[in-house]
Amino acid sequence: MPVTRNSDPEALFRAAKAGERVALPRLLSLVEQGGPASRAVAEIAYRAPDESYSVGITGAPGAGKSTLTNQIITQAIERGFDGADRVAVLAIDPSSPFSGGAILGDRVRMQNHSLDDRVFIRSMATRGHLGGLAVAVPDALRVLSAVGLPLAIVETVGVGQQEVAVAAATDTTVVVMNPGWGDAIQANKAGLMEIADLFVINKADRAGTRETRRDLELMLDLSAPEAWRPTIVETVASEGKGVAELWDAIGEHRNHLVTSGRLEVARRTRMEREFHQVLLIRLQEVINEMEDQGSFVGALEELAAGASDPYRAADEVLVRLGVMAAPGGPGGSTAGG
Amino acid sequence: MPVTRNSDPEALFRAAKAGERVALPRLLSLVEQGGPASRAVAEIAYRAPDESYSVGITGAPGAGKSTLTNQIITQAIERGFDGADRVAVLAIDPSSPFSGGAILGDRVRMQNHSLDDRVFIRSMATRGHLGGLAVAVPDALRVLSAVGLPLAIVETVGVGQQEVAVAAATDTTVVVMNPGWGDAIQANKAGLMEIADLFVINKADRAGTRETRRDLELMLDLSAPEAWRPTIVETVASEGKGVAELWDAIGEHRNHLVTSGRLEVARRTRMEREFHQVLLIRLQEVINEMEDQGSFVGALEELAAGASDPYRAADEVLVRLGVMAAPGGPGGSTAGG
Repeated sequence: MPVTRNSDPEALFRAAKAGERVALPRLLSLVEQGGPASRAVAEIAYRAPDESYSVGITGAPGAGKSTLTNQIITQAIERGFDGADRVAVLAIDPSSPFSGGAILGDRVRMQNHSLDDRVFIRSMATRGHLGGLAVAVPDALRVLSAVGLPLAIVETVGVGQQEVAVAAATDTTVVVMNPGWGDAIQANKAGLMEIADLFVINKADRAGTRETRRDLELMLDLSAPEAWRPTIVETVASEGKGVAELWDAIGEHRNHLVTSGRLEVARRTRMEREFHQVLLIRLQEVINEMEDQGSFVGALEELAAGASDPYRAADEVLVRLGVMAAPGGPGGSTAGG
Repeated sequence: MPVTRNSDPEALFRAAKAGERVALPRLLSLVEQGGPASRAVAEIAYRAPDESYSVGITGAPGAGKSTLTNQIITQAIERGFDGADRVAVLAIDPSSPFSGGAILGDRVRMQNHSLDDRVFIRSMATRGHLGGLAVAVPDALRVLSAVGLPLAIVETVGVGQQEVAVAAATDTTVVVMNPGWGDAIQANKAGLMEIADLFVINKADRAGTRETRRDLELMLDLSAPEAWRPTIVETVASEGKGVAELWDAIGEHRNHLVTSGRLEVARRTRMEREFHQVLLIRLQEVINEMEDQGSFVGALEELAAGASDPYRAADEVLVRLGVMAAPGGPGGSTAGG
């Protein structure tokens, strides 16, 4: 049994709900680790109703995401939805191997909330884990909800596709940019137009704000969905300017989702996506077990001899596994065969 | 048949070998696309002997990788191994959605070789493709070898783990850094010590070069494998300084691999890794097909009703697929059950 007495999920959930500060970080550590322990945590978390609200914050490095998150924390505890006054922040560490330096500073900056009992801050990273963040973050959000935290902010530190996808897997996704030629076009290229429920032009005391807003409006004219046109909010987060308006705009989007019934639909879609991701991770584990049992020896020898290629070798294994029909059958790859 | 007459792989290989300049880019496009067309290309490429040599270049952004690659190209065509005078460069575009700007400049910089018949340069990106680069780049290297190009340089533009892994999947991996406190430590943290066959301290006319070299030597004292201690070369790529020495060092590493028999072993290991990656991609396709056929409807309804969690739902599908034993059996997840 890898689950020791100290990390028994049921007991940890009870303790976390009772306000024991060590319990929640331990639950999230289990989620981060993956494996059987995280599954036991997920089993409990997913059976609790999904009642907390999540906000994702993403955007290019240097756009001021951490400063903004800091300000949103203040709004959340002072002007929380339905009178709520507590908030959790998940800071998603980059999977990039090259950015160790900047993160610590950002995290430290957020620490002026760290002694506040109403604020729970945690960094999450699942380095080296296949698709790890794509399941760990949704799981973590369900854990936060199950222990009764009413609001969760997911801030991505990194700039990879995985981090952007994670920030997008929230109820309201905020894309942060800065004034300046090309920023809106970059956002469009990066697929951020599709995930944004709300744009923030941060550092809006700088030149180029009007142009960036105009670019964004133009792109929204072309592509915004009919049901919700993303709001554009200008902020100077370092001075707290525009942050109350940003919080209002997040609240408006939340109202739109709740009253239109879209909140439930979107959450169901996200859960399906997570299910796919978990399925893939499980299949990877099955492959690793097959490898350990020597199931691939023949295929690899053919490969090394130049008598096969990785695609043909993989297909042969899948046919043997029974998940794929032999070439020519449905699902079989017949190209070039 | 998705393979049209114009993109028939056999004909394209013949044309590329005969020196038709449009044929090779078309083959690489097919590889990049994935799917049946890329499989037909791989089938031919993997049956040809793997006779070309590959050099990977990676390191933090701004370290001067492109300038260095440019200089290595010159060395390769003037002082190629065994009298070879041709080289291919694969510039791996970042999967990061935020870095459109810098790349173009780098590519343009490399274009002073673009009119040279001995130099073939191509950018590769497989955005949105699960593990795409991890199979597309090895496939592309086999294509380059099959059409008779004796040397391939894989330069990563991006900084993600995937790009680093791709650069490491070459015969000689060069890690580029700059003088300055902490660069060597960063490299160590990022796992670059493990993949480097050769370190370049570029911009070595700047302060801190001696300290960076000392840090590196210290780390190599602790961790370098007995068979090969990575060489450290100092360059000022923008002035061409140290580049001939770098080329010599690459040649020495190549000699070491060839004479020790490690070249063949390493290549076989890499092919096994690619095979695993292809297996995973194929399994993803199988999952997508199941989804299309409505195989997940029941599991997703349970999920939505809060009667299950993504892990349990995935396990149920795998049991049904026959790739996993029912809970309690080998490979089954019994935690929390």
